[in-house]
Amino acid sequence: MQFSKMHGQGNDFVIIDGLKEKVNNFSQLAQQICDRHFGIGADGLVILLPSQQADFTMRIFNSDGSEAEMCGNASRCVARYVYEHGLTPKNKISLETLAGIIKPELLFENDRVTSVRVDMGEPRLNRGEIPVTGDKNEKAINIPVQLENQLFYGTCISMGNPHCIIFVDNVDAVDLTAIGPKIETAPLFPRKTNVEFVQVLNRHEVRMRVWERGAGITLACGTGASATLAAAVLTTKTERRITVHLDGGDLAVEWGNDNHIYMSGPAQEVFRGEYPV
Amino acid sequence: MQFSKMHGQGNDFVIIDGLKEKVNNFSQLAQQICDRHFGIGADGLVILLPSQQADFTMRIFNSDGSEAEMCGNASRCVARYVYEHGLTPKNKISLETLAGIIKPELLFENDRVTSVRVDMGEPRLNRGEIPVTGDKNEKAINIPVQLENQLFYGTCISMGNPHCIIFVDNVDAVDLTAIGPKIETAPLFPRKTNVEFVQVLNRHEVRMRVWERGAGITLACGTGASATLAAAVLTTKTERRITVHLDGGDLAVEWGNDNHIYMSGPAQEVFRGEYPV
Repeated sequence: MQFSKMHGQGNDFVIIDGLKEKVNNFSQLAQQICDRHFGIGADGLVILLPSQQADFTMRIFNSDGSEAEMCGNASRCVARYVYEHGLTPKNKISLETLAGIIKPELLFENDRVTSVRVDMGEPRLNRGEIPVTGDKNEKAINIPVQLENQLFYGTCISMGNPHCIIFVDNVDAVDLTAIGPKIETAPLFPRKTNVEFVQVLNRHEVRMRVWERGAGITLACGTGASATLAAAVLTTKTERRITVHLDGGDLAVEWGNDNHIYMSGPAQEVFRGEYPV
Repeated sequence: MQFSKMHGQGNDFVIIDGLKEKVNNFSQLAQQICDRHFGIGADGLVILLPSQQADFTMRIFNSDGSEAEMCGNASRCVARYVYEHGLTPKNKISLETLAGIIKPELLFENDRVTSVRVDMGEPRLNRGEIPVTGDKNEKAINIPVQLENQLFYGTCISMGNPHCIIFVDNVDAVDLTAIGPKIETAPLFPRKTNVEFVQVLNRHEVRMRVWERGAGITLACGTGASATLAAAVLTTKTERRITVHLDGGDLAVEWGNDNHIYMSGPAQEVFRGEYPV
């Protein structure tokens, strides 16, 4: 089975063209393939499939075998993949995901792809949509997140998947490995949550570290950067266009007048390979 | 550049056939390629080269770019690689390494390779050969290894590369990430050392966790398992033939009457790929 290994700021994926390759049991394959010592090694497995409503369907499986609704970094990688592998001549494609249709667009400089801009859609703010327990029509801005021995204040937002953004003074001081899974699985979040710790540097820049639901610490998270922008704007901490500094690199995010969030960043193919199945 | 990704009990390597591929700047390439998010991802990079004295030369670079004298797991992978990639019809090959010539042998069951047995050579016990500071003709059995706030007792052995074996009651209780690098770089070891924490289960089995010099925690280490056997025999803890249970799987090691240590274990190709250079 042929595959391509790509990453967006170190958030890395094995991409398989399910239009060409026969793939079964996605969840189990993801666990095998994502293992960094016994498999290919990646944060997630992305499988391209046909779509009735969009150019392609993109399904994403985390390293633990669970399926993700959406992933901004993966969608950037896929946009570049389908263009450079000749699956489409379009520089703007539509991708069907479990979180709806998203439309990544390749940005060029001298005919070379430099980055990919993704319409991440509208942030969803109501507790019922995220989901967060409590009144489903209420927002969850700066709400208490009570753990056994610790209390945090988080702003919760869905970008098709749930995020809990916690602003702190020093993001490097956060023991993410210990705290991340506790917030991820707190009873407040019926479908668990991604967790972002964010330090505001100024009105145009923040630094973010992420604990991804089902994947643990990753170097970057596109939906997380988008949700972080929404949380920062809603709590009046930044402007509507910022740079998010992640462990794996930078993402530019903008909350447009159409209420959509746009994220731009690189996507890189590292190598291609053949995995025996 | 074509490569193969292999592992011996999860101790994983990118293998490049330097007889066919033109490879420059091995150390820098190892750092790039071994990165698990931005590269291919591996504990080490192995490059096959011609040899005047043996069938092939095997050079091994750690993920930090440093060169390893030898690596038992890598030699098992290489033996299988050269056979299955048609570089040799021999089931027993000789490999020139910085630690001398080693001779891995493929073991078959119904024409399929099941494991690889490696003559790891003689353990070297004198401080001057390991090296450990102090009288160069003295052994270093159960000697104090003093860290800033902690005292350990270790038995030091060279299998072409230096090892410090520390027997403990509960190997899972050891904070290897914290202690490993401190022992690795202790002044006692002029060329640093690999560090093995070992729990004796019975006279035929031990459990071992390893901190590899230049690579950190790995799932398995063939020279470490061999050195562990020597240390266990010298301190009368086990017989001369034992199974070493590693995080990545099991290795069988035997200290023969010819004073050589023989290690047997599997070697697995995970995938083949093409890395752009």
